[in-house]
Amino acid sequence: MLGAGSSTMIICIFSMTQYGTMPNPVFHTIGLISKFGDPNVAGTLNQVATHLRQHQLRVLLDESSAQLIPDSGLEVASRTTIGQECDLVIVMGGDGSMLNAARSLVNYDIPILGVNLGRLGFLADVSPSEIPHRLDGVLNGQFREAHRLLLHTQVVRNGKITGEADALNDVVVHKRDVARMIDVETFLDGRFLNTYRADGLIISTPTGSTAYALASGGPIIHPSLEAMVLVPICPHTLTHRPIVINANNTIEVVLNAANTVNTQVTCDGQVSLPLERGDQIMIRKHERKVRLIHPINHDYFKLLRAKLRWGLSLEASPFI
Amino acid sequence: MLGAGSSTMIICIFSMTQYGTMPNPVFHTIGLISKFGDPNVAGTLNQVATHLRQHQLRVLLDESSAQLIPDSGLEVASRTTIGQECDLVIVMGGDGSMLNAARSLVNYDIPILGVNLGRLGFLADVSPSEIPHRLDGVLNGQFREAHRLLLHTQVVRNGKITGEADALNDVVVHKRDVARMIDVETFLDGRFLNTYRADGLIISTPTGSTAYALASGGPIIHPSLEAMVLVPICPHTLTHRPIVINANNTIEVVLNAANTVNTQVTCDGQVSLPLERGDQIMIRKHERKVRLIHPINHDYFKLLRAKLRWGLSLEASPFI
Amino acid sequence: MLGAGSSTMIICIFSMTQYGTMPNPVFHTIGLISKFGDPNVAGTLNQVATHLRQHQLRVLLDESSAQLIPDSGLEVASRTTIGQECDLVIVMGGDGSMLNAARSLVNYDIPILGVNLGRLGFLADVSPSEIPHRLDGVLNGQFREAHRLLLHTQVVRNGKITGEADALNDVVVHKRDVARMIDVETFLDGRFLNTYRADGLIISTPTGSTAYALASGGPIIHPSLEAMVLVPICPHTLTHRPIVINANNTIEVVLNAANTVNTQVTCDGQVSLPLERGDQIMIRKHERKVRLIHPINHDYFKLLRAKLRWGLSLEASPFI
Amino acid sequence: MLGAGSSTMIICIFSMTQYGTMPNPVFHTIGLISKFGDPNVAGTLNQVATHLRQHQLRVLLDESSAQLIPDSGLEVASRTTIGQECDLVIVMGGDGSMLNAARSLVNYDIPILGVNLGRLGFLADVSPSEIPHRLDGVLNGQFREAHRLLLHTQVVRNGKITGEADALNDVVVHKRDVARMIDVETFLDGRFLNTYRADGLIISTPTGSTAYALASGGPIIHPSLEAMVLVPICPHTLTHRPIVINANNTIEVVLNAANTVNTQVTCDGQVSLPLERGDQIMIRKHERKVRLIHPINHDYFKLLRAKLRWGLSLEASPFI
Repeated sequence: MLGAGSSTMIICIFSMTQYGTMPNPVFHTIGLISKFGDPNVAGTLNQVATHLRQHQLRVLLDESSAQLIPDSGLEVASRTTIGQECDLVIVMGGDGSMLNAARSLVNYDIPILGVNLGRLGFLADVSPSEIPHRLDGVLNGQFREAHRLLLHTQVVRNGKITGEADALNDVVVHKRDVARMIDVETFLDGRFLNTYRADGLIISTPTGSTAYALASGGPIIHPSLEAMVLVPICPHTLTHRPIVINANNTIEVVLNAANTVNTQVTCDGQVSLPLERGDQIMIRKHERKVRLIHPINHDYFKLLRAKLRWGLSLEASPFI
Repeated sequence: MLGAGSSTMIICIFSMTQYGTMPNPVFHTIGLISKFGDPNVAGTLNQVATHLRQHQLRVLLDESSAQLIPDSGLEVASRTTIGQECDLVIVMGGDGSMLNAARSLVNYDIPILGVNLGRLGFLADVSPSEIPHRLDGVLNGQFREAHRLLLHTQVVRNGKITGEADALNDVVVHKRDVARMIDVETFLDGRFLNTYRADGLIISTPTGSTAYALASGGPIIHPSLEAMVLVPICPHTLTHRPIVINANNTIEVVLNAANTVNTQVTCDGQVSLPLERGDQIMIRKHERKVRLIHPINHDYFKLLRAKLRWGLSLEASPFI
Repeated sequence: MLGAGSSTMIICIFSMTQYGTMPNPVFHTIGLISKFGDPNVAGTLNQVATHLRQHQLRVLLDESSAQLIPDSGLEVASRTTIGQECDLVIVMGGDGSMLNAARSLVNYDIPILGVNLGRLGFLADVSPSEIPHRLDGVLNGQFREAHRLLLHTQVVRNGKITGEADALNDVVVHKRDVARMIDVETFLDGRFLNTYRADGLIISTPTGSTAYALASGGPIIHPSLEAMVLVPICPHTLTHRPIVINANNTIEVVLNAANTVNTQVTCDGQVSLPLERGDQIMIRKHERKVRLIHPINHDYFKLLRAKLRWGLSLEASPFI
Repeated sequence: MLGAGSSTMIICIFSMTQYGTMPNPVFHTIGLISKFGDPNVAGTLNQVATHLRQHQLRVLLDESSAQLIPDSGLEVASRTTIGQECDLVIVMGGDGSMLNAARSLVNYDIPILGVNLGRLGFLADVSPSEIPHRLDGVLNGQFREAHRLLLHTQVVRNGKITGEADALNDVVVHKRDVARMIDVETFLDGRFLNTYRADGLIISTPTGSTAYALASGGPIIHPSLEAMVLVPICPHTLTHRPIVINANNTIEVVLNAANTVNTQVTCDGQVSLPLERGDQIMIRKHERKVRLIHPINHDYFKLLRAKLRWGLSLEASPFI
C-alpha cells in the first residue's frame, strides 16, 4: 500500500495483453501537453493522438498545444479540465516541459508520462522511436509509478503571503547582479543553520539533485529519499558544503535588508517571485506528490549512467 | 524500542532538581571507558569516577582503562559486563574512542555519553570544563538522546561469511598501493549501480558524513536521515559524484579478480577485514541503533558551525 | 623597469636608518586614497597624513577622500595628478579599494601600499596598529615590491571597440537571470577551446585566484606566475574543470546570439561593460603591471594560511 | 631556436614529399619500444618495423620488446644503446608506456612519438589506423615538437641521497594504510607553505595535471606553462585547495616521525622510493625536458575535449 509519504516505486502489471489489441486499457481519458512554441512537436503530437484514438480512447488536447496542430479535430481543454477529467497525461517535450506540467497538475493526483523529443530526459524517458510500443505497454498497465517530492515556497511580508509557487526540481534564492554576493540567513524548523555568503542558495528535491544542484557541487540523491539538499552557489567560505536534510523540515530564508533589492526566488528555473526588503521565504514539502509514470523497463541507475556518461571513463585503455 | 523510522532526537527532562543534590538519578550503574594508552586521560577519569561515587552511583571501570588508574579502588569489568550491567556508559577520549565504544556496545542497547579530552568532537561533545555541571544534568535526566544508524559489513567467500564488522562512521573499500587504481563494482539491492575506478569507495552513515566522506567530496547529511552515501575516492571519471541512497538498500561490492589482492575493507578506520579474490562485500543497515546522549543544550547545527568554522568567512571585511 | 617575465618579488633595503628619524626617505610625494563613503576611514586618514607631514613629506589627498576630512588643510589632487606627481600611493580601505586604485594608476607606474581598515587583506596587508612602524620602514626603503599581472578587456562590435576596462582580479562573463544558463564559446589565440554551458565564466589573474575564482572551484595560483585561469561557474558538464593557461594567450569569448541579451562582462566586480548580440570579448594581459608594496616581513604563504585559516583543521584533536 | 626554458610547441615541416616516397627522411635510426608483457602489441610492432625497413631506415628494437616478436630479424638493443644511437623513438602502448620511456630517455635528448594501442592517449596520440600515413608524415619532418617538464625527486637521509627518480606526470607522497591520515609538512624554497593532513600529496607537472591530480580536484594546466601544482588527496581541512606554483621552486616535504613508517613516494605511479623516519623529500624541475613528437595536426585543446568528453553535455536537448 502506498501511504501518504510513500515515494517508492510501484510496479503495475494489470494485464498482459498483446500489444496492439487493448481490450482493457488502464487509462481511458488521456491529456496531451506539449512544449509551447516548438514547431517540431507537431509531428509527434499527431502521431500520439492518432494512436490513442485508434484505441478508442478519449483525448484532451491542452489549449497551448492546440495551436501547434490547429486542424487536428481533437477536443481542446484547459489545464484545469485536463486535471479534472483525465486519468493519464502524456507530456511531449523535455524535462523542462515535465516540470511545468507536473507543477500544474499536482493537485489533481494524476499520473504523468513523459515523451522526450530531443535527448533522453530524467523525467521524459520514453523516446519517440519507442512509441507506440512503450505507450501501449503503459496503456495496458505495464508501467512503474514513482511518487516524487515537490517543494512549496511562500514569500511572507509583514505576516502575509505575497507570493507562492511549487517546485519539482529546486527553489533558488539568488542575486541578479555579479558585483555583490548576497548573505542568505537560513533556519531549519526555526533553528539557525547558517548565513551563506554566496551567489545564491539552491534548495533541491531528490529529483532536482541531478540538475542545477549537481552543477553547483551537490550530491546525487535517490528519488525515493524523503530529503532535500541545501547547496550554496559559489560560497565565499570554502567549508560551506552541501547539506542533506529531512524533507519534513521547514526551511526559512531571510535576507539581510542591505541586499534584498537585488535578490529573487526562482522555482524550477521557470517561476520567479519578487522580493522586498525584510521578506521571509518559507520552503516546505508539498502535501502531495507528483505521480510519475515510467515504462516497465525503467531503471533509475541505468538512466543515471546514461545521462552522466558513467560508462565512459577518462582513460579506459588497458595500457594505462 | 525504536519506533518506525525513529532516528530523531528525544528530549528527556525527567526531573529538575538542583545540581549537586541527586535524590532520583535516572541512571544507576555507570560504565567508564577511556582511550587506551593515553596517560593524560587518568586525571579526567579519576575526576568523573570520584564525582559519580559521591552520588552513591555504582561505577564499573573498563578493563583497558583500569590500567590508567591502577589504584583507583573501582570495580573493574569486561566490556561484556559493562554492556550487561550498566544503564549508562561515559566515554572519555575523542570521536575515535566513541566509535570504538559504540560498536562494542550496540547490542546491549545502552546509552553513551562522550566527554572529549582534547577538542570538541561531533560525538564526544561534553568538555572536561563542563563536568560536573553537564554530567549532573544528564544524571538528573536532562539530556537529549539521539539514535544513530550503524552499518554492518560481511565479507562473503564461496557463499560463506569469512569476516564481519560494524561501522558507525563508514565502511571503506580501498587499495593499499598507489600504483594501481581499483575497479569497484557496486550493486544496490542486486541491481547494478556503477563500476568505480578510483582509489576506493566510502560507504558512510550520516554520522560519518562529516568525517572521511566529507574530505572526499561528500555532502553533510543530517543524522536524523535514514540514509547512506556512496563517495568514490579520487574517481577517474569526473562525473562519478557522491550518491545518497536509502538506508534500507543492501549494498554489494564486488572486486575484479585482477586487483583484489591489493584491496581491503576498513570499518571506522579501526577494523580491517582481509579480502581474497572473488569475495563479495555486503553492507547493510545494522538492526540496532547507537543510543547517543547529548547534554540538554545540544544543537547539531551549532556543533557543525563550530567544527567547520562556518562563522569565519574568508573575507568578512566590510571593505571588500 | 620590468624585465621580461619579471613578476617576482624584489626586496629593497635602501637604507637602514632608525625608525622615527628619516634623513633619506625613498619616497617624497605621497598620494592618499581612501574608500569613498566610509566615515570610519577619516581617523586613519588623518593619522597617516599627519605622520607623513611630520616627516616633511609632500602629501596629495585624492579628491573623493578629501570629503572625508574636509578641514585637513592637505593639498587635494585629482587621480591624474596623483598618478603624475606621486612616487608612492597609500590606499586605506580593503582589497576592494586596492583593486580600484590599482586599475586607476596602472599607467603611471607608481607603487601602491595598502592599509586595511577592517580585516587583513591579500592586497591591503598593513594593519592600522602597525602604523607608524611599518610605514616608516617602507618610507626608509625597507619593503618588498611585487609586480602583479592585470588583464585588459575589450568589447568588439562590428570590428570596433565599444568598451574596455582593466582587471587586477578577474573578468567575469555572466548571465543576469537564473532561468537560463548561457553558452560561452571560448578561443585561445584564435583556436577553439570549449563552449561552456554555465552560469558564467571567470578569467582570473593569479591575484584573483583567491577571490571569486576560488569560490567557484579554481586553484590558488602563486602571484609570481605569468598565468591566467579560466573557471566556469556551475558548469552543466561536470568535466568542465578550471584550466590554467599562459598569460600570453589572448582569450576570445563569443556569445551565442540567443543569450547575449542577458549577459554582461564585469571587471573586478566593479566595472561592467554592456553587451549586444554578436559582440566579441577580447581579454589580454595588460602591457604594464601593478607595483604592489609589501612590508619587509611580507610572506605570501603566511598570508594565505591566515586568510584561508589553514592552521585550523577540522579535527586537530590528538584523540581522533 | 629552443632556449633552455622553452616549453612551447615547434612546428617542423622540413620537406613536403609524397607519402610513400621518402628521399630525405628527417630521422635515420629509429628505436622501437613497446609495452612489455602485452601479446597484442606484436602485430603493431611488426607492422611499424616492416614499414620503417621498407624505407631503408635502421631500426633498433628494445630488449624487452624483442621477446614479443622473437623471430623478427630486427637488431635488438639495450635502452642505453637506443638512447645513444637513435634519433627518434617510437613507443607503442599507452600513456603509461610513454611515461616509462620518457623517463628512461630524458638524458639522451631524443624525441619520442607515441602510438596508442587502445584508446587515444594524452601522450600516445597516433592511432594504429593512422599508420603509415601519420608515421610517414613525421619521418618526412611534418610534426610538432613539444618540450615537457619533468620532476626530479631525491630522498635525503642524514644529508645523503638514498634514492632518486624522475617523473613526467607526478610525484605522490602517500600513506599505505587507510587507518591513519598522514601529516605532510611542505616547504617551498625553504619557506614553510603548509602542513597537509591528508591521504597524501600530489606534486604534478602540467603533463600530469590531467591524470591523478585531476581526479583529486586539481586544475588542468596547459603543458606550455613552467608550473607545478600541489594537490592534497582528501585533505582533512576543506580549505586546503590545490596551489599552482612556479616550476623553479624547490619543494621540500618532511614527514612527521610518527607516520613515516607507513608512507611512500611514488613517481608516475610506476617507481616507488622507500622512506625512513626523518627523511626529506626534495622535488625540483629536471634540468632537461622530454621531447614529445606530435603529428602535424595535433591540437591540445581538441585532445582535451576528446579525452574529457567536453562535447557531451549532461543535457544538450533544446527542450530543457
